[in-house]
Amino acid sequence: MKFTIEQTAEFLKEADNIVILTHEYPDGDTLGSGFALCKILQQLGKKAKVRINQALQEKFYYLTYGLLEQDFTEQTVVSVDVADTVLLGELMPYKGKIDLCIDHHYSNTNYAQRTYVDSTAASTTEIVAKIGYLLGIVLNKDIADCIYTGITTDTGCFRYGNTTAQTHRIAAKMIENGCESAKINRAMFETVSYERMAIEGKVIESMELFSKGKIAVIYTTKEMLKQSGVAEDELEGISSLPRQIIGVSIGITLREKKEGLYKISLRTNDGVDAGAICAKFGGGGHAAAAGCSIQGTLEEAKEQIVKAAQEELMKQ
Amino acid sequence: MKFTIEQTAEFLKEADNIVILTHEYPDGDTLGSGFALCKILQQLGKKAKVRINQALQEKFYYLTYGLLEQDFTEQTVVSVDVADTVLLGELMPYKGKIDLCIDHHYSNTNYAQRTYVDSTAASTTEIVAKIGYLLGIVLNKDIADCIYTGITTDTGCFRYGNTTAQTHRIAAKMIENGCESAKINRAMFETVSYERMAIEGKVIESMELFSKGKIAVIYTTKEMLKQSGVAEDELEGISSLPRQIIGVSIGITLREKKEGLYKISLRTNDGVDAGAICAKFGGGGHAAAAGCSIQGTLEEAKEQIVKAAQEELMKQ
Repeated sequence: MKFTIEQTAEFLKEADNIVILTHEYPDGDTLGSGFALCKILQQLGKKAKVRINQALQEKFYYLTYGLLEQDFTEQTVVSVDVADTVLLGELMPYKGKIDLCIDHHYSNTNYAQRTYVDSTAASTTEIVAKIGYLLGIVLNKDIADCIYTGITTDTGCFRYGNTTAQTHRIAAKMIENGCESAKINRAMFETVSYERMAIEGKVIESMELFSKGKIAVIYTTKEMLKQSGVAEDELEGISSLPRQIIGVSIGITLREKKEGLYKISLRTNDGVDAGAICAKFGGGGHAAAAGCSIQGTLEEAKEQIVKAAQEELMKQ
Repeated sequence: MKFTIEQTAEFLKEADNIVILTHEYPDGDTLGSGFALCKILQQLGKKAKVRINQALQEKFYYLTYGLLEQDFTEQTVVSVDVADTVLLGELMPYKGKIDLCIDHHYSNTNYAQRTYVDSTAASTTEIVAKIGYLLGIVLNKDIADCIYTGITTDTGCFRYGNTTAQTHRIAAKMIENGCESAKINRAMFETVSYERMAIEGKVIESMELFSKGKIAVIYTTKEMLKQSGVAEDELEGISSLPRQIIGVSIGITLREKKEGLYKISLRTNDGVDAGAICAKFGGGGHAAAAGCSIQGTLEEAKEQIVKAAQEELMKQ
């Protein structure tokens, strides 16, 4: 059932003993949404907790500040920023038991009992902030830091085309409420290990151009990571590199997950639909940023994704 | 004489035949402020023009959209975003003849007849937007693009600590007025030549750490630029690299301008005063970002600036 934001707030007002689910490979938006919503619900006097995939990365610890650890029998299941149940990862046992989904992905598959999707929102935390206001909650510093984190990570710090006037207005309110925006941006975008910076040079060396420079491809392999001493989760942001080259419409990043399996990230310019390209391989995402996985050797995976990208370019 | 913003607007209302001066090595804020103010004044029915140092870089052409080319005998001289007359460059002949200065640098030297400085503004364009409102002008798309450009370039796209709630609110209004924020951000931050990206790898290789990793130093030489085929003005942004390394409080970039002369950019974290360090060499800037020049060989320049940085670190 599709919900309005008012119905969503009303539902949460009536609910209790709430578990909030986030998506696998958790990013700033699913975590920011989860922890912000949890703190809002706790302020309303409810019992609530957040469940995440994997251990929380150290750089995200601050999102838990002000959160109460509560023990209870789960009654209500809410997912945030989860477009599809395939993204539940370790939380897959909740599939089919999700009472409410709050999301901003236009590709949301309506898997929950009740769904509120606003695909004009740059981040799911924008929606959570609005729900907080509807519930009459003061978005204090600890909540504001979560809301801002989702906004800044999903907009590439207000760079991407999904950034609206509303995005900036909510960011303004969060800063007034005490959010430490510069500190958060530094933690999210500008804090890298020496090793992480060094591997960027190697990745740039790997760059290949196709279709007269309209497609740029980079890759990382397990071997490259091992040699440089960089952890897998430190590679975030690498995928924005190829699209930055003048003339590139489709930037492709291949990351070897295990032998014979490549995770692929697409970033596009000039209105090329990244989601459509990735959908051919069972992936998905937004128009300007999407992802999928391809099995095969590096050369095979590269050939397949470049071919799909070239087909999409032909439609332009 | 120190002016209020109301006096500044009033002065401009009474003035005519206005020439607007911008600072040397023009950036998005001085140009955005100059062209926005010029368009505002022309909308008021006045004659106005902007004077800049060097030829306008291609990436800034859009700032001139909607500007009228007007010929007149100059009566009123206004400087925007110019902290000191030493920054006038080719426009030095105007020194001593500046009727009004509009700026956001706390280090402004009060060189003009009338000065309005608001050092809480993240960019001078924030001030120009407010002046536009006081003058009752609609900040149309062509003006909004200029205002937004100054904001985004001077805040590193809303990343730096100078970004306030007001900064975001003005950005929100500019987007509502038609400003193409994503396009501007792409042009300002994410459009690099293949060669420019390639040199970044080499610059990273040049990185040295001092004071147990609290100081990171990178450099470019004329020879490196020649080999890579990168133009001097494409190096912008390089200086943000060293500060990004975990643990670095002072990031230093040395750029060889000509043999025996290095231009130095400092970016600091953790409250270290970059301006104070650069002041020792006759330079200046903000607390978190400043610059100066040092004569000598690469090794000599590096030794001097690292020593000054270490002295400042001792004060912490």
